[in-house]
Amino acid sequence: MDSGPLRRLLEEVRQGALSIDDALSSLRGLPYEDLGFAKVDHHRELRNGFPEVIYCPGKTPEETAAIAQAILARGSDLFGTRAEPDVFEAVQKAAPSAEYNARAKTFRLIQNPVEPQEGVLIVSAGTADLQVAEEAYETASAMGQRAERLYDVGVAGLHRLLDNAPALHSARVIVVAAGMEGALPSVVGGLVSVPVIAVPTSAGYGANLGGVAALLAMLNSCASGVTVVNIDNGFGAGYAAALMNRLSAKGGGGE
Amino acid sequence: MDSGPLRRLLEEVRQGALSIDDALSSLRGLPYEDLGFAKVDHHRELRNGFPEVIYCPGKTPEETAAIAQAILARGSDLFGTRAEPDVFEAVQKAAPSAEYNARAKTFRLIQNPVEPQEGVLIVSAGTADLQVAEEAYETASAMGQRAERLYDVGVAGLHRLLDNAPALHSARVIVVAAGMEGALPSVVGGLVSVPVIAVPTSAGYGANLGGVAALLAMLNSCASGVTVVNIDNGFGAGYAAALMNRLSAKGGGGE
Amino acid sequence: MDSGPLRRLLEEVRQGALSIDDALSSLRGLPYEDLGFAKVDHHRELRNGFPEVIYCPGKTPEETAAIAQAILARGSDLFGTRAEPDVFEAVQKAAPSAEYNARAKTFRLIQNPVEPQEGVLIVSAGTADLQVAEEAYETASAMGQRAERLYDVGVAGLHRLLDNAPALHSARVIVVAAGMEGALPSVVGGLVSVPVIAVPTSAGYGANLGGVAALLAMLNSCASGVTVVNIDNGFGAGYAAALMNRLSAKGGGGE
Amino acid sequence: MDSGPLRRLLEEVRQGALSIDDALSSLRGLPYEDLGFAKVDHHRELRNGFPEVIYCPGKTPEETAAIAQAILARGSDLFGTRAEPDVFEAVQKAAPSAEYNARAKTFRLIQNPVEPQEGVLIVSAGTADLQVAEEAYETASAMGQRAERLYDVGVAGLHRLLDNAPALHSARVIVVAAGMEGALPSVVGGLVSVPVIAVPTSAGYGANLGGVAALLAMLNSCASGVTVVNIDNGFGAGYAAALMNRLSAKGGGGE
Amino acid sequence: MDSGPLRRLLEEVRQGALSIDDALSSLRGLPYEDLGFAKVDHHRELRNGFPEVIYCPGKTPEETAAIAQAILARGSDLFGTRAEPDVFEAVQKAAPSAEYNARAKTFRLIQNPVEPQEGVLIVSAGTADLQVAEEAYETASAMGQRAERLYDVGVAGLHRLLDNAPALHSARVIVVAAGMEGALPSVVGGLVSVPVIAVPTSAGYGANLGGVAALLAMLNSCASGVTVVNIDNGFGAGYAAALMNRLSAKGGGGE
Amino acid sequence: MDSGPLRRLLEEVRQGALSIDDALSSLRGLPYEDLGFAKVDHHRELRNGFPEVIYCPGKTPEETAAIAQAILARGSDLFGTRAEPDVFEAVQKAAPSAEYNARAKTFRLIQNPVEPQEGVLIVSAGTADLQVAEEAYETASAMGQRAERLYDVGVAGLHRLLDNAPALHSARVIVVAAGMEGALPSVVGGLVSVPVIAVPTSAGYGANLGGVAALLAMLNSCASGVTVVNIDNGFGAGYAAALMNRLSAKGGGGE
Amino acid sequence: MDSGPLRRLLEEVRQGALSIDDALSSLRGLPYEDLGFAKVDHHRELRNGFPEVIYCPGKTPEETAAIAQAILARGSDLFGTRAEPDVFEAVQKAAPSAEYNARAKTFRLIQNPVEPQEGVLIVSAGTADLQVAEEAYETASAMGQRAERLYDVGVAGLHRLLDNAPALHSARVIVVAAGMEGALPSVVGGLVSVPVIAVPTSAGYGANLGGVAALLAMLNSCASGVTVVNIDNGFGAGYAAALMNRLSAKGGGGE
Amino acid sequence: MDSGPLRRLLEEVRQGALSIDDALSSLRGLPYEDLGFAKVDHHRELRNGFPEVIYCPGKTPEETAAIAQAILARGSDLFGTRAEPDVFEAVQKAAPSAEYNARAKTFRLIQNPVEPQEGVLIVSAGTADLQVAEEAYETASAMGQRAERLYDVGVAGLHRLLDNAPALHSARVIVVAAGMEGALPSVVGGLVSVPVIAVPTSAGYGANLGGVAALLAMLNSCASGVTVVNIDNGFGAGYAAALMNRLSAKGGGGE
Repeated sequence: MDSGPLRRLLEEVRQGALSIDDALSSLRGLPYEDLGFAKVDHHRELRNGFPEVIYCPGKTPEETAAIAQAILARGSDLFGTRAEPDVFEAVQKAAPSAEYNARAKTFRLIQNPVEPQEGVLIVSAGTADLQVAEEAYETASAMGQRAERLYDVGVAGLHRLLDNAPALHSARVIVVAAGMEGALPSVVGGLVSVPVIAVPTSAGYGANLGGVAALLAMLNSCASGVTVVNIDNGFGAGYAAALMNRLSAKGGGGE
Repeated sequence: MDSGPLRRLLEEVRQGALSIDDALSSLRGLPYEDLGFAKVDHHRELRNGFPEVIYCPGKTPEETAAIAQAILARGSDLFGTRAEPDVFEAVQKAAPSAEYNARAKTFRLIQNPVEPQEGVLIVSAGTADLQVAEEAYETASAMGQRAERLYDVGVAGLHRLLDNAPALHSARVIVVAAGMEGALPSVVGGLVSVPVIAVPTSAGYGANLGGVAALLAMLNSCASGVTVVNIDNGFGAGYAAALMNRLSAKGGGGE
Repeated sequence: MDSGPLRRLLEEVRQGALSIDDALSSLRGLPYEDLGFAKVDHHRELRNGFPEVIYCPGKTPEETAAIAQAILARGSDLFGTRAEPDVFEAVQKAAPSAEYNARAKTFRLIQNPVEPQEGVLIVSAGTADLQVAEEAYETASAMGQRAERLYDVGVAGLHRLLDNAPALHSARVIVVAAGMEGALPSVVGGLVSVPVIAVPTSAGYGANLGGVAALLAMLNSCASGVTVVNIDNGFGAGYAAALMNRLSAKGGGGE
Repeated sequence: MDSGPLRRLLEEVRQGALSIDDALSSLRGLPYEDLGFAKVDHHRELRNGFPEVIYCPGKTPEETAAIAQAILARGSDLFGTRAEPDVFEAVQKAAPSAEYNARAKTFRLIQNPVEPQEGVLIVSAGTADLQVAEEAYETASAMGQRAERLYDVGVAGLHRLLDNAPALHSARVIVVAAGMEGALPSVVGGLVSVPVIAVPTSAGYGANLGGVAALLAMLNSCASGVTVVNIDNGFGAGYAAALMNRLSAKGGGGE
Repeated sequence: MDSGPLRRLLEEVRQGALSIDDALSSLRGLPYEDLGFAKVDHHRELRNGFPEVIYCPGKTPEETAAIAQAILARGSDLFGTRAEPDVFEAVQKAAPSAEYNARAKTFRLIQNPVEPQEGVLIVSAGTADLQVAEEAYETASAMGQRAERLYDVGVAGLHRLLDNAPALHSARVIVVAAGMEGALPSVVGGLVSVPVIAVPTSAGYGANLGGVAALLAMLNSCASGVTVVNIDNGFGAGYAAALMNRLSAKGGGGE
Repeated sequence: MDSGPLRRLLEEVRQGALSIDDALSSLRGLPYEDLGFAKVDHHRELRNGFPEVIYCPGKTPEETAAIAQAILARGSDLFGTRAEPDVFEAVQKAAPSAEYNARAKTFRLIQNPVEPQEGVLIVSAGTADLQVAEEAYETASAMGQRAERLYDVGVAGLHRLLDNAPALHSARVIVVAAGMEGALPSVVGGLVSVPVIAVPTSAGYGANLGGVAALLAMLNSCASGVTVVNIDNGFGAGYAAALMNRLSAKGGGGE
Repeated sequence: MDSGPLRRLLEEVRQGALSIDDALSSLRGLPYEDLGFAKVDHHRELRNGFPEVIYCPGKTPEETAAIAQAILARGSDLFGTRAEPDVFEAVQKAAPSAEYNARAKTFRLIQNPVEPQEGVLIVSAGTADLQVAEEAYETASAMGQRAERLYDVGVAGLHRLLDNAPALHSARVIVVAAGMEGALPSVVGGLVSVPVIAVPTSAGYGANLGGVAALLAMLNSCASGVTVVNIDNGFGAGYAAALMNRLSAKGGGGE
Repeated sequence: MDSGPLRRLLEEVRQGALSIDDALSSLRGLPYEDLGFAKVDHHRELRNGFPEVIYCPGKTPEETAAIAQAILARGSDLFGTRAEPDVFEAVQKAAPSAEYNARAKTFRLIQNPVEPQEGVLIVSAGTADLQVAEEAYETASAMGQRAERLYDVGVAGLHRLLDNAPALHSARVIVVAAGMEGALPSVVGGLVSVPVIAVPTSAGYGANLGGVAALLAMLNSCASGVTVVNIDNGFGAGYAAALMNRLSAKGGGGE
């Protein structure tokens, strides 16, 4: 923890170089970050082994590449989401060893690899949910998880899911991506006793209302232990899954 | 078919008692019903073996009882839905042999019994869906069906449903009532090859939006062969199930 | 039914080649499909005379063509929905005798023709509902139905519908596609005594909310016997119609 | 027209009793009403032969009675809507000859009767729409119309409506009240060439969303000449019908 | 009225050439139109002096031109809405004297001019509402109205509206098009005693929800005599205005 | 400002009674409030001359009275909102000189009166909006404003509003409460050049959707300078009006 | 695990008492539960140290008491949610040592206590969110958690939250209940690196839409690691928190 | 104030050149504007030091340039919003010294500069909210404000905001733009005692519903003093901020 500024202030007080009134005034105006608290916050991702994440929409390929370069330059890990191919092309010029998952539309370059942790399972209902499922998979991977995938096991063909009961039962955290009626998290949640993170996808048409139908279904799940993230938010699901699974690897609290 | 008025008119034309111009004028003004077409419509329920239905809300117990008495007086079958106990009490005075299903809130008195037809199965997800499921059951029964029930087999405990695969597989038409996330019709629809009628119920709270969550889920079902009725509309589901199952008992068209 | 794996296991038990404990363990881990139950499910479409269906959106023309080729190679019937012309062009190269319905945006190639069954009627309100109506028609046709069409009979010109009363009265199952106010299924449902499948279409503008106005109207239909599918879901309506009409051709249950 | 204040001001200007600057200042501050324009507005109802209307919700029976008394005291006609029986009881004490329509929940006492005008027809779909239809009827009546009623002619039994074609064809303005799927205005609008005012009612349940389903249907009517008022707004429909029908009795403009 | 078929049937009955039973059977199957009722309906537009209307979206320019040609060939008037410039270009080739209103996106060619009727006023709130207002204007014009326009008089600059009080007060029917908060119909409705037809437009952004905000405001107008049509439905408003104003030109009923 | 704890810490550092490392540690753990920042926040209401506010729903009359007593005991001003009569009865026992506004459902007891500031005007559209308008009035009053009222000046009778132009033009901040179509803030906003705070009320029925119609209208106001608070939130409007008007009484910033 | 039925079947096969074909047939029809798989599911709660939960709404006090008695009779732990006082009164007669949390509306009687696990923190924004927060607290407690509470730390008084940073930083799983704008989970999520479970509450009025406003805010949280449960679903949040925190106490998978 | 026409009329009356009756008639028909009242309204922007604003969408670049030229020609200030680059290109040809803010999509040319007023602070949550924040900034600037900016201080990294407490505390009016969960205005509102204008932005995806999630959150803010404008309405926020801050510079009322 870098408490330099505060220490210097206190030393000046002790040495009489700073009046107490001026010190009081400085302390009140001192940037929050300098109290040590915020610094921790600022460096949180690094300490956690989590890379900095670039959400690409709204940035030009060049801007994205420049940010990526800056992140890598200070030794951090790199992870980008919702990156169209032309964005990755620009990133790749700046970071030739970055890898792209074309389906997930993510890229990553891990400079500080950790021993991946087992236990996260990514489940998807149909092929139309693959981008979201893969985004969750890539996010969890970038966060140090060795995630497993179980795809295309929607509820209309239940045997496909039941055939994979062992995979479900050996998972510690399960992400379930589904569009249309969004029923899969309920079924999975009924089969296991671990946290299930439901991701509604916008797959479908008509009265799916852009994923709202699946979202509502998941929020109303009759299975206990199901929590929900935003529509198409594979990143959020993968991130939360990594946070949860990290609990199984440590005893203490969060920060 | 009662074509008396038309026949009389034609006979008057033949006998010269009515000019062709006057006949033309009469025909144009003739109540639609008297063309035979509407009569068929008017008597449709009777011919179909379907009783006349009283939807009780908005009627006083006395009004309901009076209507019931009139129906029975002309020899028709009687069936009432959404009847609170005090309504049935009044009906019972007028029709002592009428039977009440307190959970379904329906009553019936079948004066013209037919040989009940097998093949309709009523499935419900949870105990909170029972009123709707029972309304469907009673409606199908009143429409000449010997319906089977399979209750409390929601998707969070899948084995309860799978244990009853034989019942599912021997049905010809299946009604599925479910609230909350409304996932059960998709799961059932994936297990069978017969029509599934989904009834969303308002069971649940919060973002179930009074049953809209289940309704949207059912409309977006990934299982083929699922059609949907209005929220809590057990009557509509039971009625449609009877119409569908009647198809298996006859060769010809509708009317 | 292929019960080979199970039979082999049981034979090994009888011969003492497998201990009962090992057999118990195997049974628990045995893929669900191998119990015979799932196999039936897996082959359901084939046994039912129903072709495998390709939902084209989200697939490249080449991917679609490859799937089509695989389906045909194993002797199955082929049916594709929501296929833009360029998709069909690619399919046609792989399957020159496949037929395209440009309005329905479907293609099909039936290798195992069955004797088509009469009784399904497809009704549409306006010309803007034609794609959905034709999708229902093509689906029902691919499922072995000789469907009839009755188009452009919306409620604002009632005589057009009433002129076709005979067609309505000879149908066993009626699909009604309508956009805007979605009133046609109620009117049709009031004229017949057979199941009516209502398909809301997104035709219209302003407060039609992309078809939600018609959907709500159909769910609230005052005519009994009306069930509803998702907005623009002509496939679902045609499929359900085929399932229902099959009931009139057989005595037994579903599977 | 009472232009007294203005005239007096101008006379004072002419007589030199008021400087032009003071006159300018007065004119700017002069109550709008005194320009003659607002007066007309203020007395509009009286001149039109339209009574003053009391919307009763949110007023105590005593407050309502006091307002009624004041209206009658200055010789105006009295008309009240959404009046529960206890409200009318209080009104009746103040105005013994006032009449109550218990179904419409309206009361009226016309002190300045006019020769009623023919041409307004009030149509309703079902018995659940009667309160709204009656409110429209009573409003039109209070506004000097001899309205006709055609009730319980919903689209599920089309012959009931068609049997009454003559009534439809002799009307000059038609109000149509309907709940559930709200289809009746479209059917009526397709049969006639006169303005149709559609009133959605909240009758129904489930996905009728308190009348929104019917409202949307009516707004999306495929029949031309249909305009819509708020849910359950029988008053608004009856008022608009009276305004429209008055057009057939005069040649000139509005005010 | 062409009652030939019916007359022939009756004559055959009188002559004994047709048995009464056969006549009964024919009557039941007789196309509705042949009863005279539908014919009237079929020719309604022609008799009313209203042209046939082509709603252009979803039709190719060529299709539109062909329909236009057919309409003109049988001597009818021509009116088209929502016609993009390329559509009109095609129409113009088939009908060189057709006129295009580029802002309204309508075209017309009146072959059977009538004496235009005065009394319809089209009011719009802002320049963004002009397309809708002009569509209403063109529709009313095509329906035989000599409509007046009062544009850009939104409520945020009230004096612009009040300056035009005479125009408002001399109108018999007023169409008011407004987007954003949709307040103008209420203000206009409070100033006049004639029917006001409110047209919400989709002009605006954010929480205007594509015109739903204006629609809801208009449905909840505190001014009596306001009725509403669908969002952006200038055609519907102009059509209804013509129907209403026709009432002031005749004494009798609709058909 | 009470910076005692910080000052003591600094003095201990200067005197060498506290090591710099311990001081650093203390500072990091020091309750935020003790940095002076939070204290200011804690006492903000008091310093601002704003009383502490009790939102009564969900508290028993006794709980409310106890809180009121505690507030008064420490010399603060008292203000309560949404207080039903029985709540005030309890409060009055604890604070006999508290005053109740039965329409606003607020009570107050100002122990530290300030010189009231002029400039706030509360406008309401109809009598149904009075509770909300009065809540805004009482809130502004409790916050040291001498607010004016201008009630029942809805847009359907524009002259009532225009007659009061001087009141509008002399105001510095205007609160406008309106239900139904919520048009009044737009009209007022178009007449003045000062901030207008729009409060949608739930007054109305049908498609007013509990005030959402008015809310949307106000958010889409075509008049500049209009900002909006939550439905029925008279308190929020009055509070914001006081904050804004205070700006006219001082030169400096907020805290 | 009770594999008796299966074992008996296999033994009969080995002894030749059952033919292989009959065994195959039995296996296919064998209740799913008897395969061992479902039994595990059936007993899941027991093995997990989780009590059986009674959701009280829709059950009479007597029914609830009877269920409670049955649960206790078989030695299970008892936990009930949404229990009004009269329900608990009935339960208490059957189970005198059951404890009631009147704010949470839950009761419990743990017969098989486990060593409680630390790490779950329940945070609430305002006093109106207390019922939901307490339901989460009680649920987590019943599931073997020693949960901490941090209440009334809403975002409008940020220092209250920041003063409690240590509690936030020592938690392993955090439940955050908030109504109104639902901002607290985002703020908490930005301060910690552990899973945050957001529970929207229905606290608020007007455009909070019964909790939908808070729900949407939470789903759109800009803080990573936040997942969401249904409105007012304190039970679901507490249950998920217990599942997550259990991960920190074990190494293996779920079942 | 130009009261020429009125003055001339009064002088003619005094001189007897105009009869009192004719004067009365003229006054009634006199354009509202000529009463002095409307003139003030018409010139309001000019007198207020506010430029005329061009809302560019729906206008061609050429139309926009022509309007700009006209505004400048009469010596007014120019300000345009939502101007795409090609629009500004056209404007620049007509007004070479106009300045463009590419991020805000605004242009301005102030011909009558005023001494800018301090006190407005524009805060934004994330980089995705920048266009809206900049539009507010540019609007306030064009209205004579020297606004400060504080960007990218979203609630997920609270220290960034807290580090800038001095900027917050020295502001007199604060505009806060935020998308996603829209929590920032509540946090800012809790830290200051000045008016906060919340602008929801459409930044986000999925269940943000195009900004409705942020809008609802802001309307339900638990912080007092927060008012809200439409989604993405940076112009409205900047305009209202200028109106509010002007209050601190003057003592009198609005007009």
